[in-house]
Amino acid sequence: MLQTRSGKRTAKAALKIAVDMAEEGLITREEAIARVDPMALDQLLHPTLDPKAPRDVLTKGLPASPGAASGEIVFDSDTAETRAALGAEVILVRVETSPEDIHGMHAARGILTARGGMTSHAAVVARGMGRPCVSGAGTLVIDAKAGTLKVGNRQLVAGDVITIDGTTGEVMVGMVETMQPELAGDFGVLMGWADAVRRLKVRANAETPLDCQVARDFGAEGVGLCRTEHMFFDAARITAVRQMILAEDEAGRRAALAKLLPEQRADFTEIFTIMAGLPVTIRLLDPPLHEFLPHAESEFEDVAKSAGVDIATLKRRVSELHEFNPMLGHRGCRLGVTYPEIYEMQARAIFEAALAVSAKSGLAPIPEVMVPLVGTRRELELMKTVIDDTARAVFAEQGATVDYLVGTMIELPRAALKAAEIAEVGEFFSFGTNDLTQTTLGVSRDDASRFLTTYVEKGIYARDPFVSLDIEGVGELISMAAERGRATRPDIKLGICGEHGGDPASIDFCEIIGLDYVSASPYRVPIARLAAAQAALKARM
Amino acid sequence: MLQTRSGKRTAKAALKIAVDMAEEGLITREEAIARVDPMALDQLLHPTLDPKAPRDVLTKGLPASPGAASGEIVFDSDTAETRAALGAEVILVRVETSPEDIHGMHAARGILTARGGMTSHAAVVARGMGRPCVSGAGTLVIDAKAGTLKVGNRQLVAGDVITIDGTTGEVMVGMVETMQPELAGDFGVLMGWADAVRRLKVRANAETPLDCQVARDFGAEGVGLCRTEHMFFDAARITAVRQMILAEDEAGRRAALAKLLPEQRADFTEIFTIMAGLPVTIRLLDPPLHEFLPHAESEFEDVAKSAGVDIATLKRRVSELHEFNPMLGHRGCRLGVTYPEIYEMQARAIFEAALAVSAKSGLAPIPEVMVPLVGTRRELELMKTVIDDTARAVFAEQGATVDYLVGTMIELPRAALKAAEIAEVGEFFSFGTNDLTQTTLGVSRDDASRFLTTYVEKGIYARDPFVSLDIEGVGELISMAAERGRATRPDIKLGICGEHGGDPASIDFCEIIGLDYVSASPYRVPIARLAAAQAALKARM
Repeated sequence: MLQTRSGKRTAKAALKIAVDMAEEGLITREEAIARVDPMALDQLLHPTLDPKAPRDVLTKGLPASPGAASGEIVFDSDTAETRAALGAEVILVRVETSPEDIHGMHAARGILTARGGMTSHAAVVARGMGRPCVSGAGTLVIDAKAGTLKVGNRQLVAGDVITIDGTTGEVMVGMVETMQPELAGDFGVLMGWADAVRRLKVRANAETPLDCQVARDFGAEGVGLCRTEHMFFDAARITAVRQMILAEDEAGRRAALAKLLPEQRADFTEIFTIMAGLPVTIRLLDPPLHEFLPHAESEFEDVAKSAGVDIATLKRRVSELHEFNPMLGHRGCRLGVTYPEIYEMQARAIFEAALAVSAKSGLAPIPEVMVPLVGTRRELELMKTVIDDTARAVFAEQGATVDYLVGTMIELPRAALKAAEIAEVGEFFSFGTNDLTQTTLGVSRDDASRFLTTYVEKGIYARDPFVSLDIEGVGELISMAAERGRATRPDIKLGICGEHGGDPASIDFCEIIGLDYVSASPYRVPIARLAAAQAALKARM
Repeated sequence: MLQTRSGKRTAKAALKIAVDMAEEGLITREEAIARVDPMALDQLLHPTLDPKAPRDVLTKGLPASPGAASGEIVFDSDTAETRAALGAEVILVRVETSPEDIHGMHAARGILTARGGMTSHAAVVARGMGRPCVSGAGTLVIDAKAGTLKVGNRQLVAGDVITIDGTTGEVMVGMVETMQPELAGDFGVLMGWADAVRRLKVRANAETPLDCQVARDFGAEGVGLCRTEHMFFDAARITAVRQMILAEDEAGRRAALAKLLPEQRADFTEIFTIMAGLPVTIRLLDPPLHEFLPHAESEFEDVAKSAGVDIATLKRRVSELHEFNPMLGHRGCRLGVTYPEIYEMQARAIFEAALAVSAKSGLAPIPEVMVPLVGTRRELELMKTVIDDTARAVFAEQGATVDYLVGTMIELPRAALKAAEIAEVGEFFSFGTNDLTQTTLGVSRDDASRFLTTYVEKGIYARDPFVSLDIEGVGELISMAAERGRATRPDIKLGICGEHGGDPASIDFCEIIGLDYVSASPYRVPIARLAAAQAALKARM
């Protein structure tokens, strides 16, 4: 605890000293920029516990996502959403989280899990959202059904208030006073200087209006990765998504997709409004379809009923869609190739939203439609045809056009190798370094915790390659792809999304190989701005 | 059926015409070699149905592994083994197979499954073993518990005789007469000519004495891939394997491994005896440990009892070891890094067996100890230390030595990229093209059937990349690794294992980039010999 306070004081102090010295002419602005550790900013961007407030520590887990938050305990995501809609501040407490918890994580002020490491679903998503998170608090015994949470012989129940500190991993009983971050003053001054120096643009990975607004407030120059699947998990839409998956033919899928179109259009309209005039990279549907279906026996009856099918049909489809290695399965553009109507609906939603925002605000967004998991030129060509045909149809219907780009993630080794050919079709590349790391190293991020600690201890990897880019391995593929892509299309736009977009060492590498932008989670945007400035200064030397 | 008969006649006729013409001096031997399609040999190497015999076709599935076989129906692998041990000829009938069925597949004359494509577990393993297999016979309704098999309103029961034709996919009721392949005559003559011409050595992927003998009879010049995990699944050993996995500490693991040591030593002694004087590449344990634990509720009680733990402990361990993407999980050398005692036991078994065979036969085998799933120099270095230390200890104990090599699979993109560094430690590379294809393309072989057909139809891949090497993508990584490895260690031994080692187009590529050998499943060894000769002739032009 003391360490954190002193850490925070150090960051603040370092910032103040650097800015003061530069303003007094003792050092240059460039020197001031170089003196501040970008990672230290993380401390300044989140609410922190008042060091003077008393605290009753219940247990400790991993400091999975920085910041402090208090709220009443809820044990499931639906309740989190319902309570939050009524104005309650809630902490979502789960054994572990899964993609179906996204809405609950958004609704909660903080997330606490009993299982999972620093790269667990809860940790990664919480960092992305800027929600405080304590993960892997192993002493917690959670009985969600009974609505209880025990540590040793202390027991809390749903509705009791707790406070979590995602910077230290502490979990406290009751409310502990927090202090809000100050973003003006020295912080604002240094950021201004950094912006004047950096060459790399900084965008945000964001898909909700709230995240987009936070990102813009933190200085993001567009969205580098808008994941559309999170929109599909929304409680109001999941039934239509499931109907699409359970449909026996294309007509059935199209009928379900027609229900999703206005919802997707509304999503994009909100995002484009916030990002008016800026580029927004939208990734078409990526996860395997089974992620949208229930897996627990107890859910089958309800889900079958609301989707209007019998339980046997639902179970058969769940079993058909089961995959041994979903990461390497029927996902990404493989969905678009087998079910083009899904990408067609998404493209239509994008273009209709872009035209609407353009007409209303006079400031057209620049949609960059991104096809995921491409490994061959031909896949991108097939998908680009679907997107271009849809754009033409929408523009003709509305009698108006917007500029847009079609490009791809480079997230498979084969895509990096074949970048010259893929750039014949794709107008931009976004390096999806999470998946590119998984495939290049042959390591599943969800399963790596079992050996990655030993691997770092034994000197096999200097740092967790999902946190800081493996420059020697994955980095070689990225520079190869950048070089080959530019050889075909000299003005190809190159960026990086994925967790690495907010890591200073990785950003330095992006500067060296001359990418156009990095995209980081909203709360990492200021870190990326400063790191990009430092990298530019280093490159000048 | 007609097609097959004519196919077979064509292969035989083509062989005869080519040999006759060369012997009469009308064409050269080289021209004779070039005239015969290597894949056509596959027809000649397996028993085929007597075209004149009557047949009562029950249903049809996929022609997953060539050859015909008859036998009584058994519904589980243990029964297959028991009945075979009593001299019965059995056909193993399963909804689908898993690694736990290996012993049953070995014991059976043929395999029939209701589910699974050409690259399903049953199909791949059966081809490797040279067992006829019909997979994905979707009209079969199997009730293993009741011991019945239905197609429409026809029902057969355990013990009834059926015949399967893995060349056509047909399943017949009763025994249909088969004809044995003739391996002498024209076939032997042409093979002799091919051997005189080829540069590439041909080895076999084999891990049972039977497979090793078949491989040697078919002209294999050593073993290129001996997978040790199949030995772990053996019914007599699985309990010790499970005890190792369930042990709470290293001492517990070592106690269980001590029980496995004599068994592994006996395995290697048999293989080395058959392959005396030839190189044998032994891959250390590769699959994730959960593959050895039960998954069905019904098995927990028995397994816990025989392993001497309580059910709760077993269930906890199963849940701890669960992986989202086992292909990218805690497997390969990651096991050796976290549990070095496993690889130590295996290395000891290898060296003790090699010394025993050397002493007895006077012809020392050349063990090539292969570390799987390496991605960094450091991993191989750690594992080589374990292997070398064990060799030194065994040699000192026995007062004798054998030559051996330590090398690695190149099966991850990162390993290909870092080949220069890895070759500082590794004395050979074996390209594990199955996994290298999975990671480079980001495609799980077990899950690919859902989209791969569409992908081939739409021209995204010309052929199934798990059957014929993706030369543009995966091939670039292989040639890069060969070049970088040789730059560090000019005499590094380079080979290829995996399904591609038996595919003519892939063999041609191996000749072009100058690999030293290809390793194919035993029944593909003659195909590889002929294809290697054709590739050598092409290279001369």
